Amino acid sequence: MKGRRILALAGGVGGGKLARGLAAVLPADELTLVVNTADDFVHLGLHICPDIDSVLYALADLNDPERGWGLAGETWSFMAAMERLKGETWFRLGDRDLATHVLRTQELKTGKSLSDVCAIIARRLGIAHRVMPMSDDPVRSIVETDEGPLDFQDWFVRRQCKPAFRGVTFQGAADARPSAAFREALDEADAVVLTPSNPFVSIDPILALPGVREALRRPGRPVVAVSPIVGGHAVKGPLANMLRELGHEPTALSVAQHYGPLVDGWIVDNVDIGLVPAIERLGHQVRVCNTMMHTLDDKRALAQDALELVLELSAVQVS
Amino acid sequence: MKGRRILALAGGVGGGKLARGLAAVLPADELTLVVNTADDFVHLGLHICPDIDSVLYALADLNDPERGWGLAGETWSFMAAMERLKGETWFRLGDRDLATHVLRTQELKTGKSLSDVCAIIARRLGIAHRVMPMSDDPVRSIVETDEGPLDFQDWFVRRQCKPAFRGVTFQGAADARPSAAFREALDEADAVVLTPSNPFVSIDPILALPGVREALRRPGRPVVAVSPIVGGHAVKGPLANMLRELGHEPTALSVAQHYGPLVDGWIVDNVDIGLVPAIERLGHQVRVCNTMMHTLDDKRALAQDALELVLELSAVQVS
Repeated sequence: MKGRRILALAGGVGGGKLARGLAAVLPADELTLVVNTADDFVHLGLHICPDIDSVLYALADLNDPERGWGLAGETWSFMAAMERLKGETWFRLGDRDLATHVLRTQELKTGKSLSDVCAIIARRLGIAHRVMPMSDDPVRSIVETDEGPLDFQDWFVRRQCKPAFRGVTFQGAADARPSAAFREALDEADAVVLTPSNPFVSIDPILALPGVREALRRPGRPVVAVSPIVGGHAVKGPLANMLRELGHEPTALSVAQHYGPLVDGWIVDNVDIGLVPAIERLGHQVRVCNTMMHTLDDKRALAQDALELVLELSAVQVS
Repeated sequence: MKGRRILALAGGVGGGKLARGLAAVLPADELTLVVNTADDFVHLGLHICPDIDSVLYALADLNDPERGWGLAGETWSFMAAMERLKGETWFRLGDRDLATHVLRTQELKTGKSLSDVCAIIARRLGIAHRVMPMSDDPVRSIVETDEGPLDFQDWFVRRQCKPAFRGVTFQGAADARPSAAFREALDEADAVVLTPSNPFVSIDPILALPGVREALRRPGRPVVAVSPIVGGHAVKGPLANMLRELGHEPTALSVAQHYGPLVDGWIVDNVDIGLVPAIERLGHQVRVCNTMMHTLDDKRALAQDALELVLELSAVQVS
């Protein structure tokens, strides 16, 4: 497969890590990263795109690896002052991170699209690869909980995922159009990679956009997914609990069942080798490797594994 | 004079210092501070009120005495990140200070007036005295220079006052209404204090609001001014140069000539005792004392001097 153009769908942290790996092994014109925007929100008057920023910061090597979100070397004076002013402090905004939100809000106000603004910020951070929002139209995750529906950030940050997860709806998705870059990548990509982000609140919103599921399933174009569950745990975030609250085992198998026939090939961690037969019985090809991305080498290796699985599946599908 | 209710007109730094002194010697219900808003502007999408903030920070003892503006203990991560993002950095916004601008912008967006927002911020900073904008309507200083007209902050910060000052106009002033608190103080105050702020760009905009000059000149109500020029220098800011560029000597006398019969009594610094006869010849009573406000005691003492001059003038006018 010459010029293997990859479309990768990404949420925040797990998506950002694999995005960094893919960007390390693919030239800029062979990778389009399409990022979830359904947990975007306006907070303190600022337009905040947590997943886009996680991916951008990861690609620019500016992310904080210990905290797992936001910028390295972050300071918190703004939050301290906001607390003194008795403003809202439940969503933590670092001083450096604020510059991104202020710039984005200002640029959106001039009439630019979120895609335009995303491209500006990426370029200014020295990112060569294409990082784009799934849509320029507003889509918002509403989490159904045992305490009723909650806005995503209310549930995720303010309530720390405590109200049990019952499901999620994507407000605005039916009327939202995939962004131009996403549409172009859906047309032109040779393979699709689902990064190890939360399927319910990071990848499903992207799949909920009109026409996306159908467009992804193009014959001869493999869809490869990396399991966000490793050894019964989510690497980061509430996914294991969410699966349990829905009555599923927190395993890579449950995630594979969730995506169903959308995915051709699965990458699961070495520790989950025991799940391989069950995932294969769902009709998927499975590759087993290390999926824990601590170092850049880990990220690069996992990206390489995903691309090799793409190649294997392409050979199968072509033959 | 029982219940000597004072209306003080203030710009930024000099105004903030004397405001702090007045607040130290007057109970909350005897002082209304009305602050210039003609150098307010929207920057990076944020509504910034430099003079109001200077006065608020001074009253809350949060101001940075060395830098002369902004908050003590400030950090600059936001600016560093904004520089990396190639956003505008000519107007320096500290991380702590940003919280004020973000909160104000957010509250204004909900439809509150600038007076309402000012009261909210003052209360949350624990300020008992009334600090109010001169108007809730937009008024903007346009500085006439030898390079043409410039927005105030363009001239003051971006161009560092380098284009020679030829004058200033107050865009919107003719249609702006004094704020409710200002109107009330104009009705009820027993005396008026002009703080040692820049006459051209801090006090004149307040005087330019419809009806203000007339209302200030109420018989029996003295107007006392503290000279912003000490020994031929502006304590802070470009005033001495501005006077020179207009063809005047940079002296307390020139400032007294500028305000003219609006002012009844002048406070000039000990070093300017030689100017007293000339200022008296303009028809003003003059009090000579230390006007340099380095410590809280200095501020308190100068406030006390201003109030004593008010009392002297009240006695004269009553008799």
